[in-house]
Amino acid sequence: MTHGGTHGPGAASTADGSLSSVEEYQSAILAAIAPLAPASLELAAAEGCVLAEDVTAAVALPSFDNSSMDGYAVLAADVAGASQESPATLRVTGEIAAGDTGIYRLVPGTAIKIMTGAQLPAGADAVVPVEWTDDGIAQVRVYQSAEPGNAVRYAGGDAAEGETLLSAGTRLRAMQVAVAASAGRKAVSVRPRPRVVVLSTGNELTEPGTPLVPGRIWDSNSYMIAAAVRETGAVAYRRSVVPDDPAGVLPALEEQLIRADLLITTGGVSMGGEHDVVKAALRELGTVTFRKVAMQPGMPQGFGVIGEGGAGGLGAERRVPIFTLPGNPVSAYVSFQLFVRPALAALQGADDLSLPSVQATLTGPARSPAGRRSYLRGVLDGSKVTPLSGQQSHQIASLGRANALIVIPEWETQLPAGDTVDVLILP
Amino acid sequence: MTHGGTHGPGAASTADGSLSSVEEYQSAILAAIAPLAPASLELAAAEGCVLAEDVTAAVALPSFDNSSMDGYAVLAADVAGASQESPATLRVTGEIAAGDTGIYRLVPGTAIKIMTGAQLPAGADAVVPVEWTDDGIAQVRVYQSAEPGNAVRYAGGDAAEGETLLSAGTRLRAMQVAVAASAGRKAVSVRPRPRVVVLSTGNELTEPGTPLVPGRIWDSNSYMIAAAVRETGAVAYRRSVVPDDPAGVLPALEEQLIRADLLITTGGVSMGGEHDVVKAALRELGTVTFRKVAMQPGMPQGFGVIGEGGAGGLGAERRVPIFTLPGNPVSAYVSFQLFVRPALAALQGADDLSLPSVQATLTGPARSPAGRRSYLRGVLDGSKVTPLSGQQSHQIASLGRANALIVIPEWETQLPAGDTVDVLILP
Repeated sequence: MTHGGTHGPGAASTADGSLSSVEEYQSAILAAIAPLAPASLELAAAEGCVLAEDVTAAVALPSFDNSSMDGYAVLAADVAGASQESPATLRVTGEIAAGDTGIYRLVPGTAIKIMTGAQLPAGADAVVPVEWTDDGIAQVRVYQSAEPGNAVRYAGGDAAEGETLLSAGTRLRAMQVAVAASAGRKAVSVRPRPRVVVLSTGNELTEPGTPLVPGRIWDSNSYMIAAAVRETGAVAYRRSVVPDDPAGVLPALEEQLIRADLLITTGGVSMGGEHDVVKAALRELGTVTFRKVAMQPGMPQGFGVIGEGGAGGLGAERRVPIFTLPGNPVSAYVSFQLFVRPALAALQGADDLSLPSVQATLTGPARSPAGRRSYLRGVLDGSKVTPLSGQQSHQIASLGRANALIVIPEWETQLPAGDTVDVLILP
Repeated sequence: MTHGGTHGPGAASTADGSLSSVEEYQSAILAAIAPLAPASLELAAAEGCVLAEDVTAAVALPSFDNSSMDGYAVLAADVAGASQESPATLRVTGEIAAGDTGIYRLVPGTAIKIMTGAQLPAGADAVVPVEWTDDGIAQVRVYQSAEPGNAVRYAGGDAAEGETLLSAGTRLRAMQVAVAASAGRKAVSVRPRPRVVVLSTGNELTEPGTPLVPGRIWDSNSYMIAAAVRETGAVAYRRSVVPDDPAGVLPALEEQLIRADLLITTGGVSMGGEHDVVKAALRELGTVTFRKVAMQPGMPQGFGVIGEGGAGGLGAERRVPIFTLPGNPVSAYVSFQLFVRPALAALQGADDLSLPSVQATLTGPARSPAGRRSYLRGVLDGSKVTPLSGQQSHQIASLGRANALIVIPEWETQLPAGDTVDVLILP
């Protein structure tokens, strides 16, 4: 498994010079995004965020010599030569439980019962597991010799004091949360979850749950993209459908700017013709540019940063990246996975949100337009991948069955069954 | 990529008959878990949940014939034979925007300008893309002929009325949310996110952020397991550290039973010796059993269902599954991924939470005890996987660097570099 893009002959250039390659567009986006300011968050809130500091061991880990088994703390010399036939017999002078903070000292020639995780008494240099003994109470017979250090976890065996356990830039998954907690950290400095505002634009859109009249469709994009945002661990705010004109789009963006670390629109503003007026207005808000990317689905893309220096009357110091994704649901989804995911990682100072990529064998033929990289919906099962029918970009039903995107490079127009392809695994 | 366990000679049996295999234990767990009752949730709340109903198309999708491009609605016969040299010229009688709910009729010999997604006017049978024309306003020159149906998305082309779009048992990822929304659904019947209460038990545990005295360690398990629960999409409630005795553990469980769909403890109750009193008390609460599973790390496991018929004074009708995971953080983590994840899926009527599995090549040797399946922390990079040093089950620092678990089967004790192994990809 690898993370990241597809590489091969011509991957970074396209047959049609007026189109950007997927990689060119991804690079342009990442160049425009600065990480969010760090915040100190308690561990439970920091889950899924990205460390903005190194987490070091405040003390040696473990901080004291302790037993890795239930048994008896002894001097190894006192059980040297012990065997089933000739056990060593030692008086048991006490017992140390895990969590016992008392101070114990082993007298040579005796044993102290000890539980897993309990502190090794001073003077002891080995633990004899209970399985090697008669489990005695007042005295214990030991049937096997133990080397010094047997079943002992030494202080600092896991990490020395001051050792870096987690580096800045690490995403706090469950394991990393455990490492921070085990180092005694109640809070850590992280780049917080990006707050993303999602707007669908389009006069043809109707809210789900309300009646449909001919000419209209139910809005699915804002629900889908908000869910996709949350799948990355970011916070999504969904805005109701916005009319696809400057009077609808611009105030909606302005209103959301204050709460957003990233804005995503889907629909009209990426399109041509009638919508140039919205595009022109968006350009005035900042550095938003529109381009065609040599891919299918999802050609028309818009990206920029708005709110800069109060341009366009937004009056904000905030500079907020904005994506204007295509309106077709499939195009919007694929565009999100390829372009917005890496941007969300960059806002957190990380580079880990690309979809995982594997190789698989096509079970059926796949077609792609010349000069464009296709991302076909498919079902990945083991090392085989099946392209789904209904690949037109408005055909959403096949989305519900896909678990992967099959990547057909720019320089291929059709691949036969049996060919090996790169496959992106969907969340 | 596959999801699920490792299979091979002897996988389902173990060298030591007193041990359960991983699969035997997984099966026993799943046999004891019933899905949660369904609830109707609005789409945003239903994200990540599992459908308890089929979602069907309430209307045909799309519900009306519409244009897939910006262009001109025409009668194909009126542009037959059109070419660059001999264009067809048609009077433009109107314009239809996306979302326009007006009723339009094309008069033969004329054209109506039409936007992507807009309703095809009655009488038209094709759309000529704007790129094939002079983009005329009062009249348009068409430089290319169009077949009937060109650039037309027909009603029902994506789904017929009543067609099943999503089946019960489907998890609602972003794409499935889009499918439900595009079918007009505002709410769906799902099995809700399981609510999981996580308790660390152990007298040696101290809360992170508070000073450590010798003999004590900071609790990491409850933070880690709560985070791992949330990574699956379930809801986690973390309880502070609980003393490792019946007076500590049993009231804590009783108190949490009412809000939990699943309970997870880590620590003492899975261990032997001193802790038998807690085990015995837990057994009395229901059907909790303790067994050793032929794996490393994570041998001692406990699972059952408590609260049944009010047994043990819990007085509840609720039957709540409980896992008592080992206290070593690494053991607890691996046990969670192997046993609790599938249980959380089963609570939702799904079987999709097993870690994804791929094959990779070892970059260094790996060892494993005979008769036990080892899950070694490793770093997966492309098709290569590197075992990390520090594989003892208390050595948590290496957890922070791992992104995968390397599976060494029961019948192997050491594998050389270059061998192919199964690898579980961590969240």
